[in-house]
Amino acid sequence: MNQTTLLILHGPNLNLLGTRETNIYGNLTLENLNSEIKKYAESLNITATTEQYNTESELISTIQSAATTYNGIIINAAAYTHTSVAIRDAIAAISIPVIEVHLSNIYQRESFRHHSMIASVCIGQISGFGKHSYFLALQALKLKHQ
Amino acid sequence: MNQTTLLILHGPNLNLLGTRETNIYGNLTLENLNSEIKKYAESLNITATTEQYNTESELISTIQSAATTYNGIIINAAAYTHTSVAIRDAIAAISIPVIEVHLSNIYQRESFRHHSMIASVCIGQISGFGKHSYFLALQALKLKHQ
Amino acid sequence: MNQTTLLILHGPNLNLLGTRETNIYGNLTLENLNSEIKKYAESLNITATTEQYNTESELISTIQSAATTYNGIIINAAAYTHTSVAIRDAIAAISIPVIEVHLSNIYQRESFRHHSMIASVCIGQISGFGKHSYFLALQALKLKHQ
Amino acid sequence: MNQTTLLILHGPNLNLLGTRETNIYGNLTLENLNSEIKKYAESLNITATTEQYNTESELISTIQSAATTYNGIIINAAAYTHTSVAIRDAIAAISIPVIEVHLSNIYQRESFRHHSMIASVCIGQISGFGKHSYFLALQALKLKHQ
Amino acid sequence: MNQTTLLILHGPNLNLLGTRETNIYGNLTLENLNSEIKKYAESLNITATTEQYNTESELISTIQSAATTYNGIIINAAAYTHTSVAIRDAIAAISIPVIEVHLSNIYQRESFRHHSMIASVCIGQISGFGKHSYFLALQALKLKHQ
Amino acid sequence: MNQTTLLILHGPNLNLLGTRETNIYGNLTLENLNSEIKKYAESLNITATTEQYNTESELISTIQSAATTYNGIIINAAAYTHTSVAIRDAIAAISIPVIEVHLSNIYQRESFRHHSMIASVCIGQISGFGKHSYFLALQALKLKHQ
Amino acid sequence: MNQTTLLILHGPNLNLLGTRETNIYGNLTLENLNSEIKKYAESLNITATTEQYNTESELISTIQSAATTYNGIIINAAAYTHTSVAIRDAIAAISIPVIEVHLSNIYQRESFRHHSMIASVCIGQISGFGKHSYFLALQALKLKHQ
Amino acid sequence: MNQTTLLILHGPNLNLLGTRETNIYGNLTLENLNSEIKKYAESLNITATTEQYNTESELISTIQSAATTYNGIIINAAAYTHTSVAIRDAIAAISIPVIEVHLSNIYQRESFRHHSMIASVCIGQISGFGKHSYFLALQALKLKHQ
Amino acid sequence: MNQTTLLILHGPNLNLLGTRETNIYGNLTLENLNSEIKKYAESLNITATTEQYNTESELISTIQSAATTYNGIIINAAAYTHTSVAIRDAIAAISIPVIEVHLSNIYQRESFRHHSMIASVCIGQISGFGKHSYFLALQALKLKHQ
Amino acid sequence: MNQTTLLILHGPNLNLLGTRETNIYGNLTLENLNSEIKKYAESLNITATTEQYNTESELISTIQSAATTYNGIIINAAAYTHTSVAIRDAIAAISIPVIEVHLSNIYQRESFRHHSMIASVCIGQISGFGKHSYFLALQALKLKHQ
Amino acid sequence: MNQTTLLILHGPNLNLLGTRETNIYGNLTLENLNSEIKKYAESLNITATTEQYNTESELISTIQSAATTYNGIIINAAAYTHTSVAIRDAIAAISIPVIEVHLSNIYQRESFRHHSMIASVCIGQISGFGKHSYFLALQALKLKHQ
Amino acid sequence: MNQTTLLILHGPNLNLLGTRETNIYGNLTLENLNSEIKKYAESLNITATTEQYNTESELISTIQSAATTYNGIIINAAAYTHTSVAIRDAIAAISIPVIEVHLSNIYQRESFRHHSMIASVCIGQISGFGKHSYFLALQALKLKHQ
Repeated sequence: MNQTTLLILHGPNLNLLGTRETNIYGNLTLENLNSEIKKYAESLNITATTEQYNTESELISTIQSAATTYNGIIINAAAYTHTSVAIRDAIAAISIPVIEVHLSNIYQRESFRHHSMIASVCIGQISGFGKHSYFLALQALKLKHQ
Repeated sequence: MNQTTLLILHGPNLNLLGTRETNIYGNLTLENLNSEIKKYAESLNITATTEQYNTESELISTIQSAATTYNGIIINAAAYTHTSVAIRDAIAAISIPVIEVHLSNIYQRESFRHHSMIASVCIGQISGFGKHSYFLALQALKLKHQ
Repeated sequence: MNQTTLLILHGPNLNLLGTRETNIYGNLTLENLNSEIKKYAESLNITATTEQYNTESELISTIQSAATTYNGIIINAAAYTHTSVAIRDAIAAISIPVIEVHLSNIYQRESFRHHSMIASVCIGQISGFGKHSYFLALQALKLKHQ
Repeated sequence: MNQTTLLILHGPNLNLLGTRETNIYGNLTLENLNSEIKKYAESLNITATTEQYNTESELISTIQSAATTYNGIIINAAAYTHTSVAIRDAIAAISIPVIEVHLSNIYQRESFRHHSMIASVCIGQISGFGKHSYFLALQALKLKHQ
Repeated sequence: MNQTTLLILHGPNLNLLGTRETNIYGNLTLENLNSEIKKYAESLNITATTEQYNTESELISTIQSAATTYNGIIINAAAYTHTSVAIRDAIAAISIPVIEVHLSNIYQRESFRHHSMIASVCIGQISGFGKHSYFLALQALKLKHQ
Repeated sequence: MNQTTLLILHGPNLNLLGTRETNIYGNLTLENLNSEIKKYAESLNITATTEQYNTESELISTIQSAATTYNGIIINAAAYTHTSVAIRDAIAAISIPVIEVHLSNIYQRESFRHHSMIASVCIGQISGFGKHSYFLALQALKLKHQ
Repeated sequence: MNQTTLLILHGPNLNLLGTRETNIYGNLTLENLNSEIKKYAESLNITATTEQYNTESELISTIQSAATTYNGIIINAAAYTHTSVAIRDAIAAISIPVIEVHLSNIYQRESFRHHSMIASVCIGQISGFGKHSYFLALQALKLKHQ
Repeated sequence: MNQTTLLILHGPNLNLLGTRETNIYGNLTLENLNSEIKKYAESLNITATTEQYNTESELISTIQSAATTYNGIIINAAAYTHTSVAIRDAIAAISIPVIEVHLSNIYQRESFRHHSMIASVCIGQISGFGKHSYFLALQALKLKHQ
Repeated sequence: MNQTTLLILHGPNLNLLGTRETNIYGNLTLENLNSEIKKYAESLNITATTEQYNTESELISTIQSAATTYNGIIINAAAYTHTSVAIRDAIAAISIPVIEVHLSNIYQRESFRHHSMIASVCIGQISGFGKHSYFLALQALKLKHQ
Repeated sequence: MNQTTLLILHGPNLNLLGTRETNIYGNLTLENLNSEIKKYAESLNITATTEQYNTESELISTIQSAATTYNGIIINAAAYTHTSVAIRDAIAAISIPVIEVHLSNIYQRESFRHHSMIASVCIGQISGFGKHSYFLALQALKLKHQ
Repeated sequence: MNQTTLLILHGPNLNLLGTRETNIYGNLTLENLNSEIKKYAESLNITATTEQYNTESELISTIQSAATTYNGIIINAAAYTHTSVAIRDAIAAISIPVIEVHLSNIYQRESFRHHSMIASVCIGQISGFGKHSYFLALQALKLKHQ
Repeated sequence: MNQTTLLILHGPNLNLLGTRETNIYGNLTLENLNSEIKKYAESLNITATTEQYNTESELISTIQSAATTYNGIIINAAAYTHTSVAIRDAIAAISIPVIEVHLSNIYQRESFRHHSMIASVCIGQISGFGKHSYFLALQALKLKHQ
């Protein structure tokens, strides 16, 4: 197959990475995270595009249009993970594989973060490995296509 | 550091892999899964040992003693994931990293499988990627030690 | 009275109609649905305007400003039906009649779709008749003004 | 096709319409409601037969035998909507379409009226339009057969 | 210290103040409320800036950027109070003090308004005093800095 | 109007202020708190009387008789906030305004402290500002009478 | 006023009184109970009519028609107390006073008997006094008319 | 037997009767209620003593000592009905009959008033008849001793 | 003992057997089922009488009168299994043994079918064996009398 | 077919039969029960093998290997009925029929015994007939093969 | 250290010991219990003071002042165990060790007695040993100081 | 009586004592704990035998056979406390007294540790005193036999 192209989609407040609650999320900024993700992707022969939105509907629209542009999506829906039926519906509506990732282990945090509205419409979930959660999701999509 | 040695621990009924509910778990037997895991591990310069137990207490004892023998554990606790406080306590009692994996996406199955008793004492959870869930966990431990 | 003018408001992901989950929603595209709605409206001497938004706040703002432009609203809030207190508040804030419609029978789907945040501030709910749900809502507003 | 024949089935206490809780149900008597329904049906080229029972089992038996006599049923199961597994089973057992209607908006009333035991076995639900709920259901079945 | 500068942030539908549900919210328009807030702030030697958004993400972005511009935030998140994990996360991510206010007494209203997703990440909550809720929050931040 | 006279009513264990759980409640003693409240009240031309009871029934009786002596009550019902229907009934029984205050932010503490039995019968609630919670309540009653 | 006429309505299985679960209901037969009720009624100058039905709909119809024949109803709805929305609706639909009685103390029995569907539409409830529950209800209606 | 002597025990806030929430409780003062109760008791050849306490422990102590002085207790525990395990234990500890009464129909009020902690240790409950609730309880004890 | 005589009681909608939801209930009609039951009973030297009612009260009355005519009852209460306190009370009121049977495995169906109101007043439950459920119940009563 | 061979599998604590809680389980020892089961099986031309384990994993392993040795399993999982996802998974993994039996009527006991983790993966459940529960299960498998 | 002095604090209704519900609490009176406790304490070289209150606030005040007089508290809060946040707060406010005791095994009684509001602020709980519960608590404090 | 012989039974993961989560469990190893328990027992003229198992079934079998060998059991079932119906059944099946102990105060830990499956079948529970929990249980059994 051709070069795999993937969309890495970051949800609300992830633009604050590296400054926000560093005890939970670490010191890496979003810019650096994105550049590490892209580099790691390249090493797997994947072209990774990264986007971040605080807006639920931009995430929805991006998921909708990604279906014809990318081979898969890696999504960290952040806060919307726990509340958004609309993002769930967008994911259910497209046919490319979507993987749910989380930087922190959501099962070690407040109980309202233990439930994911999108888990059952993604192919899998990777939670708790910091930036490596994204790397593992890249590997997962790579392995799927081998 | 020296060669990383990891324990891959399979829980109850996983000895039936390849024969049981193949619509959910696929056709790979446990023997073949283990051999694929070991090969993948080798490619990462990891020595993987695999064990499978139907017995809760053998899982507990194995976790306890692994703490001084291995650099980490990858556990698919299967049915015990959802019920065992005792395995949770064993994991909490040791200091090497433990990763929780699942072959199937547990969030697409019966509601009693949506809750994991061990998630909050593991460093992370990988669910839904079939045999690749194990491969990703190997990568996760590899990345952690780089 | 003058010609009745109504706003037909479609919520998130309905722009995908005809392509998304066709087993649930059928093959009609949004464009075609809108044109069928307008034609049916005309046959009832109603001028129907149609809008679709993936954004919760655009739905809110549209509802707010519709109050002085239209004689009523027919809303299919889709995913936001189940989560949006803000759309509920917008509906409660205006005095023109609002009718809630759903293409599918929401009571045959996942349990989180059984509860509507907006049902108690609309005059009525029509669920399960496909495109006819909209037609019936047009009839309902027509009958109300006879 | 031949003339469509429909059964309009009213549940318990609807014989009191026009006298009972007129703030909720209005002043129309059941006799007048039935005659308006029939007239509206005629205008759609439908023959509507109306029946009212306070007895759960008469509703059940009527649903059972309607399956071979009518092209569809419009049911306002009133109080039994919220409690009757037996009426649900009767509806599930027949193959003609059944539509659930309510005079009042059940989502604006006591919480025990928010749940319908029969909604998931009917093709759709129309709630909150007074006598028009029945008219819309007639339209719905008409539209279905066009 | 220099002049204290505060951001007063109004959530969805508050642009309708004075017209919407006046039995609950009174007759004061948002424009007038803002001008009263600014005047009251001046009397306390505070410079108050007011903003209103129907959009969750604009509230999030505004909170994020306020952290470097203002000495504190007074937020009436309106409907989003009860549903938004994302606004909660934005507040938790910044280090200036945030106070939660409500015009009405949310504990006298529907039960879904009794729970605030943001209360535990704000320094305090003031509910039920109409426009005075904002004045008291200004006082609270004033007192804090004395 | 004449000088406003207010009753400041402290509930159980508040006599221990300054010694008890100082990480939550700070170092100010009740005596000092009362004297600060009175001084602040004077600056607003309010005469404040303070009382503290560990006994539910003394709080009830005091609320009952305050109705004819004071222009309003500021109550920190402490532990009884969460359990006392009887104090709720006493507040509901009188016609002078009652404001609920809390030193700590009750929404940051144990879940049984998140529910207030008295909130819906008070005009408003102020929570989380330490001694300033009382000052703000004084302001609130002052503003109400201007 | 004329002689007060009351309807005493017994629900399902009360025809078995005196034979059924005598440890709970005692040895009095329904025939004897009715004759004691009538005698007691006479002593209060009340004409009591007694009826017993195992059928929910006969209870409903009897309640409906009693509204124009009797000055009040005393109902022991037995098992239907806990499940019948339809009987509740019948009581709510009529304007003569209805009193709910129970032979046994329903709060000492299985938890599903602790909730009454009809309590909130009756003027009052008398539970636990054996045959005297009926006598007290007769007194209650007598006192009401004095 | 000798003259029956009964204790009528009123709980918290009932001292406000006739002034408090007269839409619920009516205009009769406690003094007048007591005097009516005593007069009615005399007509039944019962000596009634009345006491009212806002204090849970005085109710407990009074119940304890009543056991050797009176032939029975009629208790309106008011707010404590819903919260007091301690009053429940006091009633369970004595062997004279205790009857629970309520002026209002507690099943028509807030849901927290629907549950009585004492119902299952009393012989019966009478709710909703205003002052007549007490009269009926007097009759109930009279009937019991005939 | 004499020939054992048993009553086989079928609940609502079972008259549709063989036509209704044959994927769940199979193709056997009620008539054929009854005749197979009788033949099987004869082979056990039991005289079986079969009755089917859609009416809750006819089931109740039949249970009541069966107590003096039969040696036991085998009941498939169908939908009423899950809702009828009244049938439960009828069974509890008689002293002959009652066995609960179900054609389908109720634990594999909707969650509202997992709870039986009558299970705890029957001697046992047999569920999931199709027509054999009845045969086994006949055996059970036979074995009991050997 | 050949002689049917069945495995009768007893769960934890059933080795104590005849000595343990004889009010619930009767006086028959496990040895005698097994011998009665075998004799009854022989009369049906079935060869029954009996095993009893206190260990969850021995039950699992026995179920797994029974799949190739026996024509069916009759299991009384005792305490594990209510807690074991692992036994459920073992039953779901094999293709021979499994019947769940209980000596006592589990619906008459503590509420935690009302739920069976294995019911929905067995073909049916027989509960409450003492030793006859096993006999009936033998009949059930016999009938299935006729 | 000096002689250890401990406060033994009995809650509501314990003054009735030996007369109340002797099937649960036995025949020992409070006076005798206290004297046995003191004697046992002396044998451990502890000076025990005993107090009993029916009043929640006297328990609170006694706990507060005990903090400077005694080396520890043994509390049987009886009914208040399950309802009193205020006693919980008093215990949390002092720094001497507090042990929770119960005469009966609270886990064998009504479900509302299974939860203790004070357990998590005491150092430990001893339940079910009759008078020995107190003796063991004396031992516990003795052991702590050795 | 003869020398009392007691069995001290430790559950899963307690073999790790002194190494595991020492902030909760302290530094004492199981070997040392056992030797301290035996010494303390001797001082009470009790012969204590200690056993530890990670296996649920070994705990069950040991409890079963202890019934004829020991005068009582002291059990710290650790994680199985919260999940094991099977251990509960084993305890209920024997007639010697069993006491439940915990090193830590289980009511200060995760909510799933607040419920004990075995508490209601033991004579009492001692929780929170570290090694002294065992000593107190020894005392409890000693006191019982005096």
